[in-house]
Amino acid sequence: MVQTLTRIAVLGSTGSVGRQTLDVIRQHPERLKVVGLAGGNNTTLLEDQCREFKPTLVACSDANLHMTIKASAGAKARWAPMEEMAAHPDVDVVLIATVGAAGLSATLSALRAGKAVALANKEVLVMAGDIITREAARGRAELRPVDSEHSAIWQCLWGEDIASVEKLILTASGGAFRDKPLRDLDHVTPREALRHPTWDMGRKITIDSATLMNKGFEAIEARWLFNIPMERIEVVMHRESIVHSFVEFADGSVKAQLGEPDMRLPIQCALTYPDRIEGAGVPRLNLARTKALHFEAPEMSRFPCLRLALEAGTKGGSWPAVLAGADEIAVEQFALGAIGFMDIPKVVDAALSAHDGQADPDLEAILAADAWSRVFALDRCSALQPAGRR
Amino acid sequence: MVQTLTRIAVLGSTGSVGRQTLDVIRQHPERLKVVGLAGGNNTTLLEDQCREFKPTLVACSDANLHMTIKASAGAKARWAPMEEMAAHPDVDVVLIATVGAAGLSATLSALRAGKAVALANKEVLVMAGDIITREAARGRAELRPVDSEHSAIWQCLWGEDIASVEKLILTASGGAFRDKPLRDLDHVTPREALRHPTWDMGRKITIDSATLMNKGFEAIEARWLFNIPMERIEVVMHRESIVHSFVEFADGSVKAQLGEPDMRLPIQCALTYPDRIEGAGVPRLNLARTKALHFEAPEMSRFPCLRLALEAGTKGGSWPAVLAGADEIAVEQFALGAIGFMDIPKVVDAALSAHDGQADPDLEAILAADAWSRVFALDRCSALQPAGRR
Repeated sequence: MVQTLTRIAVLGSTGSVGRQTLDVIRQHPERLKVVGLAGGNNTTLLEDQCREFKPTLVACSDANLHMTIKASAGAKARWAPMEEMAAHPDVDVVLIATVGAAGLSATLSALRAGKAVALANKEVLVMAGDIITREAARGRAELRPVDSEHSAIWQCLWGEDIASVEKLILTASGGAFRDKPLRDLDHVTPREALRHPTWDMGRKITIDSATLMNKGFEAIEARWLFNIPMERIEVVMHRESIVHSFVEFADGSVKAQLGEPDMRLPIQCALTYPDRIEGAGVPRLNLARTKALHFEAPEMSRFPCLRLALEAGTKGGSWPAVLAGADEIAVEQFALGAIGFMDIPKVVDAALSAHDGQADPDLEAILAADAWSRVFALDRCSALQPAGRR
Repeated sequence: MVQTLTRIAVLGSTGSVGRQTLDVIRQHPERLKVVGLAGGNNTTLLEDQCREFKPTLVACSDANLHMTIKASAGAKARWAPMEEMAAHPDVDVVLIATVGAAGLSATLSALRAGKAVALANKEVLVMAGDIITREAARGRAELRPVDSEHSAIWQCLWGEDIASVEKLILTASGGAFRDKPLRDLDHVTPREALRHPTWDMGRKITIDSATLMNKGFEAIEARWLFNIPMERIEVVMHRESIVHSFVEFADGSVKAQLGEPDMRLPIQCALTYPDRIEGAGVPRLNLARTKALHFEAPEMSRFPCLRLALEAGTKGGSWPAVLAGADEIAVEQFALGAIGFMDIPKVVDAALSAHDGQADPDLEAILAADAWSRVFALDRCSALQPAGRR
């Protein structure tokens, strides 16, 4: 195994995945090096990160804080917008851990520059998977998944011919309400929705896990990451979150990747590929202690968001952008207590039905569909509000 | 995927694995072709096979039946001893499905000729793994596993660097007596031992599954097939026989290969490697229907044969040959009702303790150790006989 220093730009370094990425890099100073850090509004944390990792390129969303942040990174640091950082010659791997549409242009910039892109931002592929994967092919750039499910599929595909894939099977824990009687779902609170049984994640994704919208997004991402038609992508419920996903091949053989639920493992995989290096700090799987792994088909009546996502993914074009935009607003309104939990799929469904979509949209059309869906969804939430208080 | 015709010699075509191999070949006439068949004593079946597959090379263990068998294969068929068949220029893959030491010289002959060897004969690697793997390296020949556990590990290693392997974890169903109270094991009958819960196999291997000696043999084979030290090979009980084995890597990632218990899948993998082709007739895994997969650590007091095998494998040299030889006799004597079930490990243990072994034996010394162990074991069984009737 050749020891080479991989130079990394972390976009979205102050979020959950960004912080875990820095934890992985911290464990492997001989192998991994931070050259760029871009954070959001948490400038105190970004300053700390700059002091520790001394990046040569820095950015944050608050323009007034440029000088302070740069000072923490040291004399040699230079201010660089995310798009520039992502394409910089000193960068080998760009880890995109931004949230929402923010990562889109930086991802395109990195791919055009032929970088390896470790992608943790869901919206990028959900909204613009077609454009992104075409750009990656054109720039001979590599897209590496960071999400545990996609990383599992990716690892199972090493050494395999993609043409021999029969099915991708994504596992889903089922989220906070997997065991709640269906009739009680109308009255669950945001606080209850935030209790994820197996993974510790951000607020939006935890609620998306309870509706299974998150799994629907992952199915759409998988479609683009692995170039597999939507109808060959399935979801199976797996409450232990130990098997991160499966691949079934033409001969009937099935491969799986397993591990304790810890994002640092897939993050490290994406940073050190094609090598595997010692996993510092990641707990080891002990199958005899785990005892049993359970699987069942998802109850579609319980998870209408999953069906909506699979349908939007199959339609393609601008529909997945509407799915994501409307969902973001609906989840936000649910978290504020403005609408009920089972109103989330209703709002998304209404947006998808009302959308006058395009089959092959350009980036501008995708962003327009996203913007339209947000306005539409917010309006629909206001109309629901009284019912949400029932 | 390039369609090439793979020409196959099946040694041991009338046994369980041999018959399933022919079933796989029968499903894929455009891709797989029989050029050689070698059978044992079941000449009626071998004749039928010759009539169907029209091999150009044939052999059986009964010299008097040469002409009859050759006649069934057709005018162009030629008589060829196994060693010659295994090295014949018209053969691409040699599938070794013979039982016991019979496959040893044919395996060596195939490896010296640089053939791909699909190995289903356990004793070959258990007895002479060091010699066999050195010969394979020298002849740049490829050893492909056929056993479901080793095939699982092999498939999980495609595209991986063997240096990044932390552990191989073999799964074991636990065999016929996995749920029987320990104190009752002294009195179980051969008929009970032959009821395997998940796999339909031959008599010797089914009894070896009940003692877990079979799993011990597989650990020794894995040691040689994948060049991994014995102490990195573990066994986990898994009653459903759906996960065929696991590989744990240095970073903590674990891969598994799964499928319904059906030997035709790993056989096909070994014949068509590196391609995967449509799996005709092999039932598909349905995880939602499977519902749960269970795992537990093996109870060592219940399975003393497993401990003996792991110890013999760690010692290496001529000890594994003694393990296999003594076990074969002890199982035979148990099947005849001459000794008790829990006498099997006692006989094997006695042979290993009495063996004056060698650390780096040549083939002759290995065969001598095997012969010695059989005489020793038979003698020890006679001494136990009265106790076996208790």
